[in-house]
Amino acid sequence: MSGSTFGELFRVTNFGESHGVAIGCVIDGCPPGLALTEADIQADLDRRRPGTSRHVTQRKEPDAVEILSGVYEGVTTGTPIALLIRNVDQRSKDYGNILDTFRPGHADYTYWRKYGVRDPRGGGRSSARLTAPMVAAGAVARKWLQEQGGISFVGWMSQLDDIAVPFTDESQISQNPFFAPDASIVPRLEERMDELRRAGDSCGARIDVVARNVPAGLGEPLFSKLDADIAAAMMGINAVKGVEIGAGFDSVSQRGSEHGDALTADGFESNDAGGVLGGISTGQDLRVSVAIKPTSSIRTPQRSIDRQGNETSVETFGRHDPCVGIRATPIVEAMLALVVMDHVLAFRAQIGPVEFTP
Amino acid sequence: MSGSTFGELFRVTNFGESHGVAIGCVIDGCPPGLALTEADIQADLDRRRPGTSRHVTQRKEPDAVEILSGVYEGVTTGTPIALLIRNVDQRSKDYGNILDTFRPGHADYTYWRKYGVRDPRGGGRSSARLTAPMVAAGAVARKWLQEQGGISFVGWMSQLDDIAVPFTDESQISQNPFFAPDASIVPRLEERMDELRRAGDSCGARIDVVARNVPAGLGEPLFSKLDADIAAAMMGINAVKGVEIGAGFDSVSQRGSEHGDALTADGFESNDAGGVLGGISTGQDLRVSVAIKPTSSIRTPQRSIDRQGNETSVETFGRHDPCVGIRATPIVEAMLALVVMDHVLAFRAQIGPVEFTP
Amino acid sequence: MSGSTFGELFRVTNFGESHGVAIGCVIDGCPPGLALTEADIQADLDRRRPGTSRHVTQRKEPDAVEILSGVYEGVTTGTPIALLIRNVDQRSKDYGNILDTFRPGHADYTYWRKYGVRDPRGGGRSSARLTAPMVAAGAVARKWLQEQGGISFVGWMSQLDDIAVPFTDESQISQNPFFAPDASIVPRLEERMDELRRAGDSCGARIDVVARNVPAGLGEPLFSKLDADIAAAMMGINAVKGVEIGAGFDSVSQRGSEHGDALTADGFESNDAGGVLGGISTGQDLRVSVAIKPTSSIRTPQRSIDRQGNETSVETFGRHDPCVGIRATPIVEAMLALVVMDHVLAFRAQIGPVEFTP
Amino acid sequence: MSGSTFGELFRVTNFGESHGVAIGCVIDGCPPGLALTEADIQADLDRRRPGTSRHVTQRKEPDAVEILSGVYEGVTTGTPIALLIRNVDQRSKDYGNILDTFRPGHADYTYWRKYGVRDPRGGGRSSARLTAPMVAAGAVARKWLQEQGGISFVGWMSQLDDIAVPFTDESQISQNPFFAPDASIVPRLEERMDELRRAGDSCGARIDVVARNVPAGLGEPLFSKLDADIAAAMMGINAVKGVEIGAGFDSVSQRGSEHGDALTADGFESNDAGGVLGGISTGQDLRVSVAIKPTSSIRTPQRSIDRQGNETSVETFGRHDPCVGIRATPIVEAMLALVVMDHVLAFRAQIGPVEFTP
Repeated sequence: MSGSTFGELFRVTNFGESHGVAIGCVIDGCPPGLALTEADIQADLDRRRPGTSRHVTQRKEPDAVEILSGVYEGVTTGTPIALLIRNVDQRSKDYGNILDTFRPGHADYTYWRKYGVRDPRGGGRSSARLTAPMVAAGAVARKWLQEQGGISFVGWMSQLDDIAVPFTDESQISQNPFFAPDASIVPRLEERMDELRRAGDSCGARIDVVARNVPAGLGEPLFSKLDADIAAAMMGINAVKGVEIGAGFDSVSQRGSEHGDALTADGFESNDAGGVLGGISTGQDLRVSVAIKPTSSIRTPQRSIDRQGNETSVETFGRHDPCVGIRATPIVEAMLALVVMDHVLAFRAQIGPVEFTP
Repeated sequence: MSGSTFGELFRVTNFGESHGVAIGCVIDGCPPGLALTEADIQADLDRRRPGTSRHVTQRKEPDAVEILSGVYEGVTTGTPIALLIRNVDQRSKDYGNILDTFRPGHADYTYWRKYGVRDPRGGGRSSARLTAPMVAAGAVARKWLQEQGGISFVGWMSQLDDIAVPFTDESQISQNPFFAPDASIVPRLEERMDELRRAGDSCGARIDVVARNVPAGLGEPLFSKLDADIAAAMMGINAVKGVEIGAGFDSVSQRGSEHGDALTADGFESNDAGGVLGGISTGQDLRVSVAIKPTSSIRTPQRSIDRQGNETSVETFGRHDPCVGIRATPIVEAMLALVVMDHVLAFRAQIGPVEFTP
Repeated sequence: MSGSTFGELFRVTNFGESHGVAIGCVIDGCPPGLALTEADIQADLDRRRPGTSRHVTQRKEPDAVEILSGVYEGVTTGTPIALLIRNVDQRSKDYGNILDTFRPGHADYTYWRKYGVRDPRGGGRSSARLTAPMVAAGAVARKWLQEQGGISFVGWMSQLDDIAVPFTDESQISQNPFFAPDASIVPRLEERMDELRRAGDSCGARIDVVARNVPAGLGEPLFSKLDADIAAAMMGINAVKGVEIGAGFDSVSQRGSEHGDALTADGFESNDAGGVLGGISTGQDLRVSVAIKPTSSIRTPQRSIDRQGNETSVETFGRHDPCVGIRATPIVEAMLALVVMDHVLAFRAQIGPVEFTP
Repeated sequence: MSGSTFGELFRVTNFGESHGVAIGCVIDGCPPGLALTEADIQADLDRRRPGTSRHVTQRKEPDAVEILSGVYEGVTTGTPIALLIRNVDQRSKDYGNILDTFRPGHADYTYWRKYGVRDPRGGGRSSARLTAPMVAAGAVARKWLQEQGGISFVGWMSQLDDIAVPFTDESQISQNPFFAPDASIVPRLEERMDELRRAGDSCGARIDVVARNVPAGLGEPLFSKLDADIAAAMMGINAVKGVEIGAGFDSVSQRGSEHGDALTADGFESNDAGGVLGGISTGQDLRVSVAIKPTSSIRTPQRSIDRQGNETSVETFGRHDPCVGIRATPIVEAMLALVVMDHVLAFRAQIGPVEFTP
């Protein structure tokens, strides 16, 4: 039930608050012998970092990671890897107005109902900033999975607000702040974001992610099914309200004769399953899609109540992402990597050595 | 990583195969003092039972549950409650043709890739029959939650194939084999199923479920968020390919000014959040929706391979549900109840007594 | 915190009460491909069975085990193995007098204080009868460990009451009801037991156990150290009050120059460590010793109180072991096997294939 | 199986190496609303700190703790409490000679066998220095338990080498570096230590600990029994080779008529059970005793091998505790407090509010 630990065998324990002293995590269970430096982790952190374009929060956080333990002479020792990210730019005053009122759609309210006490600065523990340690932990998993089995993870924005983003060119993903796999749509996305910023409003997004070269056989039926664990990982990301594997909700109106991915001597003919059957990986790409709701912290006044239950109106100033989906791609990739990593180790425990795709 | 245990504090360990000697589960962590008989559990099992209409598998299983332990003089003692359901109608010959070939879209293939050995009779461990013990365990959770806090769970079919099922009358749900909350749509649903049966094909469905009177404060951020655990529970049900909480994928094209559920002195104005903010319950109804893919076992011939990798064609005879969604409603309710139960106990552990809704 | 599940990767979930319908367990995480029949398990159960000599309880329980799942065509499938043992000889009337009073030194009192309700028949859940499913689960672990790595487990009685039992001949252990590794001491042990039975009293015992051919490298520092997990396993056995690894309490008055087991080109010169250093196995034999207290259910009248707190006197009639240590050897072996099995799987998860001793 | 996380509901995840950048832990599951400052934790750390007398290692470590998260305005928020202790005095050169050889009786060998790579500086992860974060976490548990239920923990040295330390005056424990509850024995203990230091040898010790005002009903049978969890916690402390609860190994030669603690209207007449029956607390004091082996790092030359398996001789220079038992008392108290804390939360989860002793 531990709210702050993710994974069973590759375990990541997360700590920190948005405007506290530091955020970070402890990774336990990492195989020994992996070459690892802070630079390996920093690259992924930089992809998620705030302040990199005008479309995201302007908070200036270098998100510089420090390895505190678990690595000796550049190699993992198999003992816990503690990662620390000091918070630098904490302008808590931006949040003063939310001490006594609750932002509609925000965890302010539920943290207060649960704990009776909370750190309100920057959303405290509920801030999306807490995904940074997961991106860092994911970077460690990704490095190991890449080196051992050539497993890779690629995510992208497939929809922003009502604008569908076509997948035309994977190489474009890293060339624009939206992680959009199509260069021509970027001006429309920028325009939409500028419009929202002017309106003091926010919007949602859809992020897709695939994992490639995933070996067959990962997943523990009944209840640590690969897709169940992916669903938990994704739904646990801030602002996510929906998760699909493979054909997802489209499968509702498909026929069995259409949905089943025919097997041939050359492999599967399609991938409606999204790489998972019966909770176990098929060896095809894992295909996952998530729905991200619009940011709740907006400048538009909203009806709300204060702690005493009196009605009031709330507008949130400060530095917020008008669409948290813009920075979500590296997070989605990281969480998927953590799930795959955990299941690779689980496979080794019960079954034995994993046959990675050549 | 245990594949067969669900929950942390109200723990359900599931065992069995479709055509083995028996299926069942062990519930650990149930509070003592709950009045419990087999009849309390049987009612929910009967709602999920096969053979109750012409639209589902004709396998004749009474699904009679036996309480083996944990109850003394009609009251739970706080020790493990073992529940046993003997398999009665195992016509394994129906499945003979799938010993050496793989049904497209079925776990046959992945179990074989993972374990190298499998029980092929009736799908073995991957059969949806293994949801019966979860429905049984869910019945125990539901009874406790109802008695302690008036918490209730109601699910229904909201779509079959491409037929949307309107929610017009909750009392109708129990009056038709589809769990449809609208009487007038039932003939269309029956017609569609008859058509599919004739065609030897199958279809998908969407099931919605709500939990009522859920107290605020349930859910453990970051990683045992209430919605994350719900997503895992739902995606872990056989054939589920998508999960939504509240507005779900619709939230992608919503604006923040529209999605945020305004708070008023009388409560929330809407429930796009689906009863969860920041992974913690708001006190509103939990709203969950799942996508169920079409059954993979169909009579229509499909391209496939055999164990040696040679191409072949597969048609599945035997007794299958042409739409597993038809019997999914009690399962979805049960899994949601198990998640809520677990989180109520977790709340008690860290925070203290739960304030149930009066 | 689950009270009824033992192990992390080779997980055993135990259920049942002494005089309930049945006792049993579910083993999850067993590697697939292990040849397994009920006979493989029955042999160990028979060693622990009541009624096999006049020195133990005369309850007649065949302890016949039924495999309900997880085995297909004589081979484990990697899915949960459910084991069922029906209770046959429940003479609950023997225990009528303990419904309202508490036996000093017995769990009657604490179960009542914890749960507020309990099954008093035969000690209910607190009965040593609940070790039978662990012996059954241990038999599965032992078979796999023997076949994979030649790992074996041998326990024996090293002290009964104040009679030290010398280790002179391992082959004698199976030749007497005490599991004594010395034939000549057996008459003295029998005499002592007859004396105690006449006196209506009970005594304690010390059981030693070794595991052989244990590979180096098992154990997860800091907190799932091999010796820590062994200590938990042993202290969790009914009536155990002390656990030693290697030199145990003798190490208190040893010097470092004496205790350290010197390493030579031919291996270690001694084994004061008991096969564990820093929580990790050295490759030497694991050496464990446990103290078992005298049975609390005795015919001698003892001062006690009833549920209302009034003073009373208690004598326990019925069928009890005057020394639970007599039947403890197979239990101690089984628990050690379960710990080793779990750690072998953990090693495989994080590190990779285990180098078993040739 | 996570080697670095202790506890289920009050979870402590430990990280760091003796001579790395920092050591620390993350506490998850702490109830909100506890007033907590670094000073509350520092007091216990100071009791364990090195360099406080000539009888312990002369390493100069202030062990200053920094709270990184989980506390806002001096009060716990219910979110993870990360504690950081920077390493200050790392004279790694002291350990240069152990890079290629193994100290007999030391984890050098097993870490190398398990991981194939290790941080040799100061024993790396296997150093007793890693108990400091546990003492820090224990201080948090102790404060909560004291405030909620008046539960307290007192440990002391009961034997050093072959010198028994009588329990004559509890107030003396804090007055000498040995935690000896008798002033008159202190000169003999000092003399013995001086002698050992001159001889370049080390010795063992026995530490006793009691927990007072522990409510009845704590402990989860079968496998998270209170005494089983205590045994694991104690055996997991560096250098511990034996654990006793209550009468411990003395119970082997006790009779049932003698061992059973009679119940009277005024409570129990004795406490051979050590406060636990059937794995559940009785409401009496918890009584625990542990055996600590002599330090393996000694100046006396010992036979050993190098990494290539060649025979060699090892003498360890550097700053070592000639008896790790001297500083073990605060560790033993802390670990017991962590176990009790975890079980109090588990009780609340399944049963409800705890009735603390008035």
